[in-house]
Amino acid sequence: MNWEDIYAHAQEWVKEAGNRIRSSFDQTLNIQTKSNPNDLVTNIDKEIEQFFIKKVRGVYPNHKILGEEGFGDDLKSLEGIVWLIDPIDGTMNFIHQQRNFAISLAVYENGIGKIGLIYDVVHDELYHAIRGNGAYLNEKSIPVLKSTTVKESIIALNATWVMENHRIDHNLMIPLVKDARGTRSYGTAALEMVFVATGRVDAYLSMRLSPWDFAAGAVIIEELGGVVTNLRGEKLDFLSQDSLFAANSGLHHSILKEYLKDGKW
Amino acid sequence: MNWEDIYAHAQEWVKEAGNRIRSSFDQTLNIQTKSNPNDLVTNIDKEIEQFFIKKVRGVYPNHKILGEEGFGDDLKSLEGIVWLIDPIDGTMNFIHQQRNFAISLAVYENGIGKIGLIYDVVHDELYHAIRGNGAYLNEKSIPVLKSTTVKESIIALNATWVMENHRIDHNLMIPLVKDARGTRSYGTAALEMVFVATGRVDAYLSMRLSPWDFAAGAVIIEELGGVVTNLRGEKLDFLSQDSLFAANSGLHHSILKEYLKDGKW
Repeated sequence: MNWEDIYAHAQEWVKEAGNRIRSSFDQTLNIQTKSNPNDLVTNIDKEIEQFFIKKVRGVYPNHKILGEEGFGDDLKSLEGIVWLIDPIDGTMNFIHQQRNFAISLAVYENGIGKIGLIYDVVHDELYHAIRGNGAYLNEKSIPVLKSTTVKESIIALNATWVMENHRIDHNLMIPLVKDARGTRSYGTAALEMVFVATGRVDAYLSMRLSPWDFAAGAVIIEELGGVVTNLRGEKLDFLSQDSLFAANSGLHHSILKEYLKDGKW
Repeated sequence: MNWEDIYAHAQEWVKEAGNRIRSSFDQTLNIQTKSNPNDLVTNIDKEIEQFFIKKVRGVYPNHKILGEEGFGDDLKSLEGIVWLIDPIDGTMNFIHQQRNFAISLAVYENGIGKIGLIYDVVHDELYHAIRGNGAYLNEKSIPVLKSTTVKESIIALNATWVMENHRIDHNLMIPLVKDARGTRSYGTAALEMVFVATGRVDAYLSMRLSPWDFAAGAVIIEELGGVVTNLRGEKLDFLSQDSLFAANSGLHHSILKEYLKDGKW
């Protein structure tokens, strides 16, 4: 398998998809809702996913595809080579803001992340990594992550998770928010993960995401020495929905131990 | 008084200050704490405030200045012409992210906002307004705000305010977060106000800010038909700290009435 070749194709296709999204800004969006009224999807999300599927199948007919909009394969396992694609991560931002969204694309082999690309289309910032070679923002190498303490950290976390909710006891989260230097919420898992990768935030916690939301970010963060697990500190399986907890390694360790009770909840 | 002249000077100085901040990115920051460990200030905050003070005093020796870093005047009233300056709004973001901060500069006359400028330095986006002439993002006119309902709105609000806190009963805020389409938190009042102005978020609520944080944003939002008050729906006085609630007019009305009990708390 020529991974450099796949990496080059992935970058080329992500850039081309970004151009298509940028040129859609003048069109009227066709917005629909999915599982709940706030789970939005547009014609552009669907078109971009179909664009990727056509490209991947054209060059790599044996690869499998897991895509947010469901045009890919119905997978029961991660055997072989699998592309995990979110054509627009942060669709609500895309609709309301025309910014703060990204394309997220990962390529995994037998469940192991090999390639991760996250493209902030509006700012033309491509975060990318191929396993074992570090991570890059456009042409620039991203420095390895330094460990931080909770009290000097900015944590990305939505307000929903410090209120009573169905996913986690909010009393676990409140002390963390109180002790941290600050919290932010950007409404896009893919960008929040590259903000962890670049140290703009020190940790990102979310209670429920899908594999295409975090597959690319996991490759990028791990290349920089960061740690990506679910909120119990367990390995993600990339085939089902899960919570997510990404941070530099020292912070991951101390939050898991001191606030998340080593997953014993 | 030649307001067009003041407007032109203000724009010129803000752009020049932005250049100085950009060229500071390669320097090592000298970071200090102010009233509490998370209230940070850098040498750049101080240098930029002093730059503005020198410019204003050089051309308009009779004008007064209220600045975050305290190098301006010690004002007991807003009589006359007052410049309200936050050299770097979002200092924590400036330090951690080198983005998501802004220069905020307003000029008031006898307590009435005449000019508002908010400059997103990294993205070279200058939001600006002079009373009675609409508001602009760089050269482009910003459309007047449309009213939105809570359930279709994105609300900028920090997680801190839905947890027990000293400023507001968090049980007032929780239903709002539950009913809204989504919440975001960017850690910079000035940019969160221009996000309201441009409809990227529909409302911004904060429990404690200073006049230089919101004076410029208030001019810009009001030019677009939006409403800026404190959380009880009262007029801001621009001389002391206060809570802040900015939104398009329909949303401001319904949040104030349905969630904030018309200020009766």
